[in-house]
Amino acid sequence: MTHMYANELDAPAPLAQHPLVWRETNTPQPGSGQLLIEVAACGVCRSNLHLIEGDWVDGGVPAISPIVPGHEVTGRVVSLGPGVDGFAVGDPVGVQPLWWTCEECEFCTSGREQLCHERLITGEHVNGGFGEFMLATAAHTYRVPDNLDLVEAAPLFCPGITGYGAVKKLDVGPGQRVGIFGLGGVGHLALQFAVLTGAEVVAVARGADHLTVARELGAHETVDASAVDAGTVLEDSLDAAVTFAPSDEVTAQALRALKWGGTLVTGVPISIESLPFNKEQVIKASLLGSRRDMREVLRLASEGEVRTVVERFDMSRAGEALDLLANGRLRSRAVVETRRPS
Amino acid sequence: MTHMYANELDAPAPLAQHPLVWRETNTPQPGSGQLLIEVAACGVCRSNLHLIEGDWVDGGVPAISPIVPGHEVTGRVVSLGPGVDGFAVGDPVGVQPLWWTCEECEFCTSGREQLCHERLITGEHVNGGFGEFMLATAAHTYRVPDNLDLVEAAPLFCPGITGYGAVKKLDVGPGQRVGIFGLGGVGHLALQFAVLTGAEVVAVARGADHLTVARELGAHETVDASAVDAGTVLEDSLDAAVTFAPSDEVTAQALRALKWGGTLVTGVPISIESLPFNKEQVIKASLLGSRRDMREVLRLASEGEVRTVVERFDMSRAGEALDLLANGRLRSRAVVETRRPS
Amino acid sequence: MTHMYANELDAPAPLAQHPLVWRETNTPQPGSGQLLIEVAACGVCRSNLHLIEGDWVDGGVPAISPIVPGHEVTGRVVSLGPGVDGFAVGDPVGVQPLWWTCEECEFCTSGREQLCHERLITGEHVNGGFGEFMLATAAHTYRVPDNLDLVEAAPLFCPGITGYGAVKKLDVGPGQRVGIFGLGGVGHLALQFAVLTGAEVVAVARGADHLTVARELGAHETVDASAVDAGTVLEDSLDAAVTFAPSDEVTAQALRALKWGGTLVTGVPISIESLPFNKEQVIKASLLGSRRDMREVLRLASEGEVRTVVERFDMSRAGEALDLLANGRLRSRAVVETRRPS
Amino acid sequence: MTHMYANELDAPAPLAQHPLVWRETNTPQPGSGQLLIEVAACGVCRSNLHLIEGDWVDGGVPAISPIVPGHEVTGRVVSLGPGVDGFAVGDPVGVQPLWWTCEECEFCTSGREQLCHERLITGEHVNGGFGEFMLATAAHTYRVPDNLDLVEAAPLFCPGITGYGAVKKLDVGPGQRVGIFGLGGVGHLALQFAVLTGAEVVAVARGADHLTVARELGAHETVDASAVDAGTVLEDSLDAAVTFAPSDEVTAQALRALKWGGTLVTGVPISIESLPFNKEQVIKASLLGSRRDMREVLRLASEGEVRTVVERFDMSRAGEALDLLANGRLRSRAVVETRRPS
Repeated sequence: MTHMYANELDAPAPLAQHPLVWRETNTPQPGSGQLLIEVAACGVCRSNLHLIEGDWVDGGVPAISPIVPGHEVTGRVVSLGPGVDGFAVGDPVGVQPLWWTCEECEFCTSGREQLCHERLITGEHVNGGFGEFMLATAAHTYRVPDNLDLVEAAPLFCPGITGYGAVKKLDVGPGQRVGIFGLGGVGHLALQFAVLTGAEVVAVARGADHLTVARELGAHETVDASAVDAGTVLEDSLDAAVTFAPSDEVTAQALRALKWGGTLVTGVPISIESLPFNKEQVIKASLLGSRRDMREVLRLASEGEVRTVVERFDMSRAGEALDLLANGRLRSRAVVETRRPS
Repeated sequence: MTHMYANELDAPAPLAQHPLVWRETNTPQPGSGQLLIEVAACGVCRSNLHLIEGDWVDGGVPAISPIVPGHEVTGRVVSLGPGVDGFAVGDPVGVQPLWWTCEECEFCTSGREQLCHERLITGEHVNGGFGEFMLATAAHTYRVPDNLDLVEAAPLFCPGITGYGAVKKLDVGPGQRVGIFGLGGVGHLALQFAVLTGAEVVAVARGADHLTVARELGAHETVDASAVDAGTVLEDSLDAAVTFAPSDEVTAQALRALKWGGTLVTGVPISIESLPFNKEQVIKASLLGSRRDMREVLRLASEGEVRTVVERFDMSRAGEALDLLANGRLRSRAVVETRRPS
Repeated sequence: MTHMYANELDAPAPLAQHPLVWRETNTPQPGSGQLLIEVAACGVCRSNLHLIEGDWVDGGVPAISPIVPGHEVTGRVVSLGPGVDGFAVGDPVGVQPLWWTCEECEFCTSGREQLCHERLITGEHVNGGFGEFMLATAAHTYRVPDNLDLVEAAPLFCPGITGYGAVKKLDVGPGQRVGIFGLGGVGHLALQFAVLTGAEVVAVARGADHLTVARELGAHETVDASAVDAGTVLEDSLDAAVTFAPSDEVTAQALRALKWGGTLVTGVPISIESLPFNKEQVIKASLLGSRRDMREVLRLASEGEVRTVVERFDMSRAGEALDLLANGRLRSRAVVETRRPS
Repeated sequence: MTHMYANELDAPAPLAQHPLVWRETNTPQPGSGQLLIEVAACGVCRSNLHLIEGDWVDGGVPAISPIVPGHEVTGRVVSLGPGVDGFAVGDPVGVQPLWWTCEECEFCTSGREQLCHERLITGEHVNGGFGEFMLATAAHTYRVPDNLDLVEAAPLFCPGITGYGAVKKLDVGPGQRVGIFGLGGVGHLALQFAVLTGAEVVAVARGADHLTVARELGAHETVDASAVDAGTVLEDSLDAAVTFAPSDEVTAQALRALKWGGTLVTGVPISIESLPFNKEQVIKASLLGSRRDMREVLRLASEGEVRTVVERFDMSRAGEALDLLANGRLRSRAVVETRRPS
């Protein structure tokens, strides 16, 4: 059995020395505290493009081509390593980008394990989900509720947790007004979580199609950013806003749309030309979410409170999915089905 | 013109000396910063019973019979005192129990004016809404949105703000589970606010009728407290709970239903026989809410997010409403219509 | 080698079945993830009396006499079980009451591991520190900074973490005023932590001796509860208060001393006869603290920001220490030195 | 009597129409809710330079030369307008930059009146403290504690409240580590407030003189930014940081010095070239503080917890003070004494 991506080169030295990094080319054996998963599906994330194109080199996310990418993964448990309990062979499970954390640092012991400096990222530091099998850390593996389809569930593990973690940081509720800037893979999930908070939700996106989807997903108001300047239209009207667009223009519009004292949450690196102090606005960067958050996402999906919209590709069309994504021609989340037909 | 309740006795000295206390028997003139309101409707609150029966003597809420009761009031502006702007004659408005606060103390200047030690309570320290006219402080008068009926809006000004203030203190959101213990006038509004937070809501009440209403109002789960022990059924399962029942048994059940680390909010005085420290539970007492909260309640009602259920009584049947309330025979909030037929 | 307390009876069945419970009479071998510690010192806590006298039977803290008590322990690492890193033989270490937690539940993954329902308590569920050797879980073992004396450091592991966890829940800072009710083993440490927050600290205790100590430890104001009613003297003046006295009278005084909207933190089970809702006070129960908190306590002690006051007893006088404690005749924390003279 | 600055031109129309703007050249009469103050002292703030030089034109802070500048003012009450109570002629008082707020908006009613969109700024929208007399709004006038010198107290009303508001937003306490970047007029007060929180405080400044002062004021550690790169030296070590330097370089260093998940508070407009999302850092802009904060500052100063360091100039040397400030040659806060010798 071979993986979708060749994996014959050595990883750079620091990672190569890490005992948890796996780069065998054959089906691996789960080590202590690990599971072997037969992959059912793996979502295609924009960061996969970055990784493949090698333009992410900062912040502990090196561009290492010989690693199998893919970090929003679902599948079924094939075998259990020593010391693993709570899982059985055949269980439907999922893995998010957080593949392993140290469990000892101040972040791991305070429910912010996504900030663990030793964190290993699925598909970046260790082989990810664009293969037939994948190793996982039991402590970072989640049981997928039985009523969820494994393909539709896959995006919960990256855009889902990303959107959820960001919306939690908005800290809004009934009586407040929040803006979602951008309705891509993460945005359409963040929108649904924001609606759940009871806040009045304004969706800002480009084009009538996106706005129609936004209204279907519960947005109370929409702004077509291709027709008007959202910063002007919404000026000083939002208690909080979230943006996932790596665009200085969108950041500036969102800040302008915020009330004084309001909060902007961002899930991408942003630049800010001039943040005025006299409006007391707050900016929070957001990366994924904790294990507790991930379990809440799965519960909300299981209860029908949020749903993903996916475009299915079989493994042979994985490259096509990446191309469509790179060219902005995907209308929903691409998910590669890697499970062999049964 | 005379008021519904005779008002000929002098108030006790301390109140009598307060320049804002009004006890004239004729239509009063609004003083500086005041409005005169022609009352349209006034809800009947359990605390009206307490007041009339004289069993509230603590905490700055003396039992003063010569004061016209009634503290959830709607009506229309008749005239404006000096220095009042932002209101016009004919405007639909409402008044909550907080009739006046000092605007200077640490509570008034930090958005918790309900804790102002100088606060004057509508219908307790100053004449309230069971009359044809009522004076109000402009700073504590709220414009009622045009799409709301003045009779149906009346309960927003006491059970509405009470439920909203309590639910805010729960501090819950999507992914959490919250219990509402009791579905009286406040409970049925608290339930709706809790549903808006995105949390999973469990309604606990006695009898199938109440539980049917609870489900209609959005409860995800119901527990019939007349058939089972809610503390046992829900044990260690709620992130937060709110209770408005002045019953030690309900308090104990709610604490038992809470998870460790969970939060109980109470809008009535409670006793606790033994609060274990090793579960790290939190108890928060809650009284009404701030002006900002009150405006949020009105906005949510205007947007159709919450609705009141009322039983209408004309002024001549006000005593009957009190009797029905005293005997637990009201199925929804009694509201006395004091507006003369036009 | 024998333990200070005979240990020949079987533990009750449920615990006996737990794989982590150790009750051998000879020096045990550390299992996977465990350390063997040669005990240097172990503080004497009031809960040791409870345990021995069998009056703690609730909340997962059963009275099991055959277990070696003692849960504020320091010593040196003797040997390491499989999979333990970060410690070396000879390292000075300490163990707090939290001996093991599951690392998987919502509490363990959110920095509140003291609420883990599977928690094992040192000296209650597993053998504690009143012996020459003790097993410890590496994940719950703390390196003691080199500049701390192992005897003086022992109380940091129970009154220290208890006081710190409670003071954190007060959530006060400069510009606020806080009361410490009671100056026993926990109180004198809580007082120091409260002073560190920058708040104005009022110490309430019985007798001039305690108040003198309080002032030495930084209290800005003292109230002699043996001479006056602290509730009356401090009425409505404290933003927050903490009490560790299992006394309904002290609880009532503390609540009365609180401002409206204030917070009472308690580290003992309390009863409340009537909590008025209209003051919006908050009650928080507090149990120990997280590992992160424990590390902060050790750092603060190492930097000289807090200090313990101890009375030293050698192992042969352990019974005497318990007697003095039971009779209220200890002036500071009793610590039993169990290390053999070298 | 003439003012220090000529005041013969008309203000622009919008301000001219505001009933509260005072631009008479003779001693004004206090209007309703106002006080007339005989100025004792007025601190010289960098923003006075901006105002005079006309380079602040955004955010509601127009450059209007005919207004008397000066917004950190102390003095004594000369006369009271109608409706003012709580003050008597001769009372020592102070005024901060917040001269008037609307008392009605969501910010005024939630303890964040510094964000009131109608706010009038002392010395910018209305005449300030560089004159012999000044009008003040009673609701924004503070009694200066009797044990404070009016000249030394003046800087509490701008750098004091600015530093305090910023330090509150850091939300730190014992066990955490915080950096103060820059030790100018605001920084040296922010440093003292930070020390009061119980956090470990690192002062970052240029030159040995500043660092010596920092240690005297309680800094636990100092970094000489003229000798080393503070971002490198402190990398990933601070829970929170505050900066008042309008320098992109300092902002970048502070962000680098922050731990992941840490908080940067800024009291000046800043630019950020690239804020990485994967460190989950938070940026909070900070403007002054609420009235409640201002009262806490005065109390802390009265209790000796913080002290200002001032350089005194009499009114004839006011221009010299501005020159020294413009050329960076002031070693502490310049305060102009405007009180005539008695």
